[in-house]
Amino acid sequence: MTRPAPALTPLPEILIEPVVRGALLEDLGRAGDITTDAIVTDGLTTRMDFTARQNGVVAGLDAARLAFRLMDPAIRFEVKEPDGTVVNPGTVIATVDGPAGGILTGERTALNILCRLSGIASATAALVDAVKGHRAAIACTRKTTPGLRPLEKYAVRAGGGSNHRFGLDDAVLVKDNHIAIAGGIRPAYERVKAYVGHMVKIEIEVDTLAQLEEVLTLDVDAVLLDNMTPEVLREAVQMVGGRLLTEASGRVNRETAPAIAASGVDLISVGWITHSAPILDIGLDFAAG
Amino acid sequence: MTRPAPALTPLPEILIEPVVRGALLEDLGRAGDITTDAIVTDGLTTRMDFTARQNGVVAGLDAARLAFRLMDPAIRFEVKEPDGTVVNPGTVIATVDGPAGGILTGERTALNILCRLSGIASATAALVDAVKGHRAAIACTRKTTPGLRPLEKYAVRAGGGSNHRFGLDDAVLVKDNHIAIAGGIRPAYERVKAYVGHMVKIEIEVDTLAQLEEVLTLDVDAVLLDNMTPEVLREAVQMVGGRLLTEASGRVNRETAPAIAASGVDLISVGWITHSAPILDIGLDFAAG
Amino acid sequence: MTRPAPALTPLPEILIEPVVRGALLEDLGRAGDITTDAIVTDGLTTRMDFTARQNGVVAGLDAARLAFRLMDPAIRFEVKEPDGTVVNPGTVIATVDGPAGGILTGERTALNILCRLSGIASATAALVDAVKGHRAAIACTRKTTPGLRPLEKYAVRAGGGSNHRFGLDDAVLVKDNHIAIAGGIRPAYERVKAYVGHMVKIEIEVDTLAQLEEVLTLDVDAVLLDNMTPEVLREAVQMVGGRLLTEASGRVNRETAPAIAASGVDLISVGWITHSAPILDIGLDFAAG
Amino acid sequence: MTRPAPALTPLPEILIEPVVRGALLEDLGRAGDITTDAIVTDGLTTRMDFTARQNGVVAGLDAARLAFRLMDPAIRFEVKEPDGTVVNPGTVIATVDGPAGGILTGERTALNILCRLSGIASATAALVDAVKGHRAAIACTRKTTPGLRPLEKYAVRAGGGSNHRFGLDDAVLVKDNHIAIAGGIRPAYERVKAYVGHMVKIEIEVDTLAQLEEVLTLDVDAVLLDNMTPEVLREAVQMVGGRLLTEASGRVNRETAPAIAASGVDLISVGWITHSAPILDIGLDFAAG
Amino acid sequence: MTRPAPALTPLPEILIEPVVRGALLEDLGRAGDITTDAIVTDGLTTRMDFTARQNGVVAGLDAARLAFRLMDPAIRFEVKEPDGTVVNPGTVIATVDGPAGGILTGERTALNILCRLSGIASATAALVDAVKGHRAAIACTRKTTPGLRPLEKYAVRAGGGSNHRFGLDDAVLVKDNHIAIAGGIRPAYERVKAYVGHMVKIEIEVDTLAQLEEVLTLDVDAVLLDNMTPEVLREAVQMVGGRLLTEASGRVNRETAPAIAASGVDLISVGWITHSAPILDIGLDFAAG
Amino acid sequence: MTRPAPALTPLPEILIEPVVRGALLEDLGRAGDITTDAIVTDGLTTRMDFTARQNGVVAGLDAARLAFRLMDPAIRFEVKEPDGTVVNPGTVIATVDGPAGGILTGERTALNILCRLSGIASATAALVDAVKGHRAAIACTRKTTPGLRPLEKYAVRAGGGSNHRFGLDDAVLVKDNHIAIAGGIRPAYERVKAYVGHMVKIEIEVDTLAQLEEVLTLDVDAVLLDNMTPEVLREAVQMVGGRLLTEASGRVNRETAPAIAASGVDLISVGWITHSAPILDIGLDFAAG
Repeated sequence: MTRPAPALTPLPEILIEPVVRGALLEDLGRAGDITTDAIVTDGLTTRMDFTARQNGVVAGLDAARLAFRLMDPAIRFEVKEPDGTVVNPGTVIATVDGPAGGILTGERTALNILCRLSGIASATAALVDAVKGHRAAIACTRKTTPGLRPLEKYAVRAGGGSNHRFGLDDAVLVKDNHIAIAGGIRPAYERVKAYVGHMVKIEIEVDTLAQLEEVLTLDVDAVLLDNMTPEVLREAVQMVGGRLLTEASGRVNRETAPAIAASGVDLISVGWITHSAPILDIGLDFAAG
Repeated sequence: MTRPAPALTPLPEILIEPVVRGALLEDLGRAGDITTDAIVTDGLTTRMDFTARQNGVVAGLDAARLAFRLMDPAIRFEVKEPDGTVVNPGTVIATVDGPAGGILTGERTALNILCRLSGIASATAALVDAVKGHRAAIACTRKTTPGLRPLEKYAVRAGGGSNHRFGLDDAVLVKDNHIAIAGGIRPAYERVKAYVGHMVKIEIEVDTLAQLEEVLTLDVDAVLLDNMTPEVLREAVQMVGGRLLTEASGRVNRETAPAIAASGVDLISVGWITHSAPILDIGLDFAAG
Repeated sequence: MTRPAPALTPLPEILIEPVVRGALLEDLGRAGDITTDAIVTDGLTTRMDFTARQNGVVAGLDAARLAFRLMDPAIRFEVKEPDGTVVNPGTVIATVDGPAGGILTGERTALNILCRLSGIASATAALVDAVKGHRAAIACTRKTTPGLRPLEKYAVRAGGGSNHRFGLDDAVLVKDNHIAIAGGIRPAYERVKAYVGHMVKIEIEVDTLAQLEEVLTLDVDAVLLDNMTPEVLREAVQMVGGRLLTEASGRVNRETAPAIAASGVDLISVGWITHSAPILDIGLDFAAG
Repeated sequence: MTRPAPALTPLPEILIEPVVRGALLEDLGRAGDITTDAIVTDGLTTRMDFTARQNGVVAGLDAARLAFRLMDPAIRFEVKEPDGTVVNPGTVIATVDGPAGGILTGERTALNILCRLSGIASATAALVDAVKGHRAAIACTRKTTPGLRPLEKYAVRAGGGSNHRFGLDDAVLVKDNHIAIAGGIRPAYERVKAYVGHMVKIEIEVDTLAQLEEVLTLDVDAVLLDNMTPEVLREAVQMVGGRLLTEASGRVNRETAPAIAASGVDLISVGWITHSAPILDIGLDFAAG
Repeated sequence: MTRPAPALTPLPEILIEPVVRGALLEDLGRAGDITTDAIVTDGLTTRMDFTARQNGVVAGLDAARLAFRLMDPAIRFEVKEPDGTVVNPGTVIATVDGPAGGILTGERTALNILCRLSGIASATAALVDAVKGHRAAIACTRKTTPGLRPLEKYAVRAGGGSNHRFGLDDAVLVKDNHIAIAGGIRPAYERVKAYVGHMVKIEIEVDTLAQLEEVLTLDVDAVLLDNMTPEVLREAVQMVGGRLLTEASGRVNRETAPAIAASGVDLISVGWITHSAPILDIGLDFAAG
Repeated sequence: MTRPAPALTPLPEILIEPVVRGALLEDLGRAGDITTDAIVTDGLTTRMDFTARQNGVVAGLDAARLAFRLMDPAIRFEVKEPDGTVVNPGTVIATVDGPAGGILTGERTALNILCRLSGIASATAALVDAVKGHRAAIACTRKTTPGLRPLEKYAVRAGGGSNHRFGLDDAVLVKDNHIAIAGGIRPAYERVKAYVGHMVKIEIEVDTLAQLEEVLTLDVDAVLLDNMTPEVLREAVQMVGGRLLTEASGRVNRETAPAIAASGVDLISVGWITHSAPILDIGLDFAAG
């Protein structure tokens, strides 16, 4: 049975604005857009369409809108296909309309963020599609771009995916190195249990079913089954028997995902959708008519 | 004839530090690495190797070093294969050595930046390889990640590529929209020529040989030949006859690059190497012995 | 049965430094410490002791050390009683030693942070003491000082307390207003369950045992029993029967805490220890001898 | 004779905004208010009242208003009882009205600042009341919360108090340690007099009447009479005879303040009102009707 | 033949705002404008004129406008003589109108920036005038005020001048020290040519005609003829014969400029117009009528 | 009788660093110093001297040192003539020694700050010299460069000058506009007196002796005698009779200063020394030998 796609609430603007402002300043440098400043006469207006050139899922329209507003508050930005929508080549996603100077100057910043986030949403959606019919959700990792984690995690949600922890501080994930240093799963667990607050979930990573057996004697919330074959995963899921969340990771792609999902795990986490997803190709062209 | 790979001078630390610090703070959140803090006893030290798991080119070791130093100045970081080196699965790129807590906490930040920049360097190097024997350099664009432009442009250099302009302010690139607004190539050129300083190069984008002919009557430094077939490119290069730099763009990948390069263009610019290059897979594991 | 005090791992310096730097800059203004600059001759050194003037628990020594280091790296700071230690009037907590100018200038910033965090640790410890012998941990809330949440949550840990969520994003707490808006506990729960990731705990606030009964039909991690009498709390704990965490809040102070704890709740949360704890009085005086 | 309460001019928004923005970002973390985002449907509006639950004096309404505006500019904030007003349990201080999501998300940040500043105003007002009928003003110190000095000094003014210096750079206060280092009151005075500009006031701290006698031979603006009994203070005030401002400090609270004030000093300074004032309890509830 | 004055496009507000905000915060300190806050009653409005008291050229009106808007969005700012206009004593440049408090508080910040930038524009214009009839443009250098480079370079444009490179990264300028380190002009050139991207111009500084001869064998864009007499400059210009841009620098002032320009150089660069230009005296007074 | 030059205590590095870091980042842009990076081989070291090319007074060596340290901590910086020293053409002020890359890259930033601050110190010293033999100190104003006020006020001290208020918040200066708005000098005074704290000095600006007479009936600390002739100033000083500080301003330069000082005023304030002082010409050249 498939989970319903989670609701998609926009990120607060206060979280997006520093990223967009930083991106604009990085592009404007010390002199601004010298090409446009030389050519575009004050008072000239234009209207341009953001048009998809590939199949995918849109994410990042609020950031795109903000890029233009920060250049010129007189620019209007009308969303045609909101974040989370499936688009095809030719779909007009949004229209931008107003002073031509600000539009041309903000264009690359708007596209850089929009195409990247849409790329993440699209890669996520492709994996979500690949496991349709199974209970597994597709979850992202902390393998995100420096400075963009809130936006990229949002893009994963836009693609129908689920968010793993947002940082080192909001959940415990005991990994192989921690286990080695603690001298075993139980001592690692005990130290963590004594340390963290009551609103913090605990997950332990295991490589073998023997390790899983030990985890099942502990009061944890989830287990990360790393780099197991679909067969071993299936056995693991049966061992767990619903007592805690099961998450599979390792070598996940569109081809391998269905078999992994068929094992019955609750989640499949994959770094690829944030660290290596190609952008979604979106163009900005003069609006017809 | 192939250009020699440009020298690779490190970025000043003052340019890298804000990115690395921001990435660490984003990951540490408000409570820090609660898993490691719970488990790792003060005083414990460890030694770990950064090991390539794929073929590629390394870039970003200064940022990785800094991630650890910002966590704990007692951590040592020894580079084995400096930025720009070709690595293979199993190549030990660097070793990190010191207090275990800081190493485990900084690991993901270090890897996130190192793998991304190495991915860009590797994608660039693959294209550079693909055009070997031709005069064409591989150049990046402004299609970079918000906040990371200096680092990503550096990674392109590490991969043997060349840098196009760094922003809207350091060179003029007259594009189709500018030409449309100005009412033609010559008026666009004239406005630009009157506006910018003497240390600013001017490039004009053309789609057709007719446009190129007009550009050749002007005093510009380069022409961007957009989305032309190799055959048309070859004709364009002949028309130009070395009077200005010729740059090809559009639909460039490892397969198409050789034919494009064979046209004799000076540069091939490609957004893909920064906006869609997959990361280079690098692991951090306990050092043997 | 009392829980053992959680381990106390220092906050990473990268999290503390902006607060201390900001506090120093706020105090130095545009001209620096004009009194000390006028009076203290270059080269003069001194040695001063941080001495407790009250009973309490110390917290914030890393921040105090940093205040002096940012003024002058030549200043040494030696901790005698680390964070988490119980101190009495006259206990020397730390000694600072080096150039007198930097010490006098940094003094107030160091004390402002140290006394405040120690005040929070002390208030927490007093409540922890008050419930000794019961299973209840003392937890803090989000009622912290703007900009100081990571440090104040750390001070609570130093006092033997436990941390509730660190922000709006790391755990779900469904409150009365949310329930009213959703039209009931179950619809609120369902929306939350569909929305948040698998590493996020869910707690629901209830005012009555009837509401508690509804919560017990849901898959949540904790229930916040707000403003109940010890008698009702006891009944609530029995109803829950260990199936989820029970947290009591409302009108908690040293006098009421023992009876609340005697109800058997797992946690008692209290805003007072962060928003209204008086500072711990600590003086900085010339070291004897 | 009692001084009239000083006028209360609002702080410029440019000084408040960074504090409020920082507090919101601290609370929103990387994912925002996940509880509210999950539950509150777009388009839902609400109206809530800020209601005092204690006697006290309000301060910080501009910051509260800003917390909501930064979350959603569509939220209206109507002040009923402006900063500086005495409130009682049940007094409606302000009403907030608009999109429910932004209101619920901004609530804690608004309350954290408003309750803290109102707590400071209330503590100040209580002392001002305690010395009513005497000439003494109640002044604050530099014992403020890191990052909040401008706001906390403003809250003191809202409570009818007076501001001592704002930092180390806007006035000279020669303390015991400075005197010890300079080798006496006169050499300390002379160094200061030669060093500081003509718009800087000079105050010297004394512990004894003998020291006061020395201060009276110098051209200073104020003397800080530290830790003296009311009797000794009275004698000190007579010795000074109005030639300079007299300020008493040390062991000041509501009980001791009247006797201290009765000595005739011009000012009584007290750290407690900023570093240890409990918050004023203010609630935010759905507006009736 | 004289070049036409370049067009003057405003700087994007996103580049100006941090400077103006920083200047206001620097002036407001921790308590704001205590004089105005004490005196100006809420609700009082006023209208004041910016009036030139000297001959010169205006620059910086957008920054002035912003200083008032950041103090109070209700303040209107009407430009009478836009940036780049020649003004005389008595010329009303702009009118500010609205709440008196914000106007008086923002006045000094607005004037500090406006007078400085206008001073630069005026100094530039004076030199531009001095070389009228010659082909030479007047160019600025990197000798600008820390933090103000974008604004000061803009002011140079407002005065009819031309911008040299904006930083160390947007163009190559090989200076005497570089040549010494490289061991000659040619090796320096070769290293640079291999290193920089295709959109970067290269200029080489020479002190002698012998060095110039060497430069003329290289593929560079410009040559900086440093500290040459007008006679030598004339010879240099003839040697170059239009093959590359010729720039003269050293000992340039209103008296020497005409002879330097008469040599036929393309550019005369001068640090003085940014590092030592006196301000243009502009007053802000109550508007008549 | 001449006042002795005030002692010169260095600014805390924490105040200087943001300015220097910002200046370096502004100059490095997104790619760093491409000329030096291309030419200077790693490992090459050099030694260069800062040498005065004009008579003047040095100020800003700590900032210069920091510019190099931020580029490369291996660079040594040895001060020969500390801030406040009189230098002549050829005086070696400081020597910088170490990796050549960092030295060449940091050179312009170091010089930009050092030459500007030394220019201010020199202009101040010239005026101080001009009034030698009189009691008048030379004071600066708030007419400083945005972002540089602490450094420029320090440079004034280095030149033997005195600092007026540092901002709008550390002292009261009632000007003509305030008086007009308040409806007279006395009402303005009364509002201010009721508003500000006891550590704040009050100065009132007057244009006429009639106004001065009114000021003398009030309890203020200083009077600013604006734009009066030396004769009127002399009369004003006699009227004041030492009861408060007298400050002259308006049309002050090296020629007019002696006559103004001869009037017996305590202070002469002048905006010119910060807003229009030309830089002190200092060169950085390879060290001999």
